Amino acid sequence: MTYCLGLLLNDGLVMASDSRTNAGVDHISTFSKMRVWEKPGERIIVLLSSGNLAITQAVASQLDDQIRLPGGEKRKKGSTLLTVPGMHAAAKLVGEAVRKVYDNDAGSLQQHGADFIASFILGGQVKGGPMRLFLIYAAGNFIEAGPLTPFFQIGETKYGKPILDRVIAPDTPLPEAVKCALVSMDSTMRSNLSVGLPIDVLVAKTDAHRVFHRRSIGEDDPYMMGLRKQWGDGVRRLFSQLIDPRLDE
Amino acid sequence: MTYCLGLLLNDGLVMASDSRTNAGVDHISTFSKMRVWEKPGERIIVLLSSGNLAITQAVASQLDDQIRLPGGEKRKKGSTLLTVPGMHAAAKLVGEAVRKVYDNDAGSLQQHGADFIASFILGGQVKGGPMRLFLIYAAGNFIEAGPLTPFFQIGETKYGKPILDRVIAPDTPLPEAVKCALVSMDSTMRSNLSVGLPIDVLVAKTDAHRVFHRRSIGEDDPYMMGLRKQWGDGVRRLFSQLIDPRLDE
Repeated sequence: MTYCLGLLLNDGLVMASDSRTNAGVDHISTFSKMRVWEKPGERIIVLLSSGNLAITQAVASQLDDQIRLPGGEKRKKGSTLLTVPGMHAAAKLVGEAVRKVYDNDAGSLQQHGADFIASFILGGQVKGGPMRLFLIYAAGNFIEAGPLTPFFQIGETKYGKPILDRVIAPDTPLPEAVKCALVSMDSTMRSNLSVGLPIDVLVAKTDAHRVFHRRSIGEDDPYMMGLRKQWGDGVRRLFSQLIDPRLDE
Repeated sequence: MTYCLGLLLNDGLVMASDSRTNAGVDHISTFSKMRVWEKPGERIIVLLSSGNLAITQAVASQLDDQIRLPGGEKRKKGSTLLTVPGMHAAAKLVGEAVRKVYDNDAGSLQQHGADFIASFILGGQVKGGPMRLFLIYAAGNFIEAGPLTPFFQIGETKYGKPILDRVIAPDTPLPEAVKCALVSMDSTMRSNLSVGLPIDVLVAKTDAHRVFHRRSIGEDDPYMMGLRKQWGDGVRRLFSQLIDPRLDE
């Protein structure tokens, strides 16, 4: 399982992803689910992925190959994540990569009884356009976040959604948004063993077109340890302060 | 959708269920998902249900028919919920009823592309035995709660699980357990529109073999309204008191 989330705020973008993958409980590994394409001062594009690891890696490899492979630089302008003119074109590029992987692999997966499961959160900004956030489906189509829905989640989304619903709005400051993303991650990790540390966190400020803050948060991270304890103790204390109901016969 | 939960505590049993059913978003109704069989002073048995309403109603009708239909009183002793010698036998009886409905309906459901979806929480006490709590599957088999897992949930379980994980233990007092069940219901209703009021709540004290407290909590219930507001405000306040992370470049 996986838990990734992207928050689109007035001040910028917050992206966070866990790093546990499992193929059955006896095959658990650690893989980063966050990929970044950056030309500092010109563009920052971040992709989070959930689903079948072979599929999501194939999609990312294809996006990288468009840039790296010999002849990549001569490719039609706008046909790689480092050259697309804006975020909508970037989302279309990712969607096309998903469809290519589907055409290549879905039939074979079906022969083994496996579904084609993958979803992506794509966020970022290309100079000249706004910061944007997309949720891309296995079918390669996508939806975009807006002021009324300023965040997307993929993977194990339910445990961590209530705190996002209560806190996140477009005017949430970036530090508070990161804090909220970490509380949401913590609730998810407490309830689902297949979501685990380290957590990758990335922050990009609006109109800076670069990574502002990036961190991998592991077991021994003092801020995360403090946050988990304060939140857990606080929720129990808050609960104990609520008035008990009268149980009349 | 549905959300039901049962808590097995040293002091007794707490059962709670929402009452919204939907067959598509344009067909939403209100049905109680809680059924009670009681012989005050001798037995109290409570059944909560989730899944296809036609299936769960058929199961409940069968259990009632065993008692009500002519000849019911002459049935073999132990073959109705009012005569079984203990809770394990009661769980078997419910499981058998589920299997009978499966034999009767699953084939026709399949012809219409519908799965046989149903699950049940059965709790209660028959004089001479302990208070017990079971989770009964669509296959008619079941598992039992114990001190390490003192609660079961069915339906839309994820949003409301974190608070149960943090609070509920066998020694939780009954009023606090009811409060926790209502907070759990509130979190679920906030995040899933297909879970809705009124909430049925039932409390049975250990060794009393009767309903101690039973209430249907609707929109205008002053305790529930206060709880929702205190909890929502408290969570936001608690969150705002957590230290923000330092976002170093």
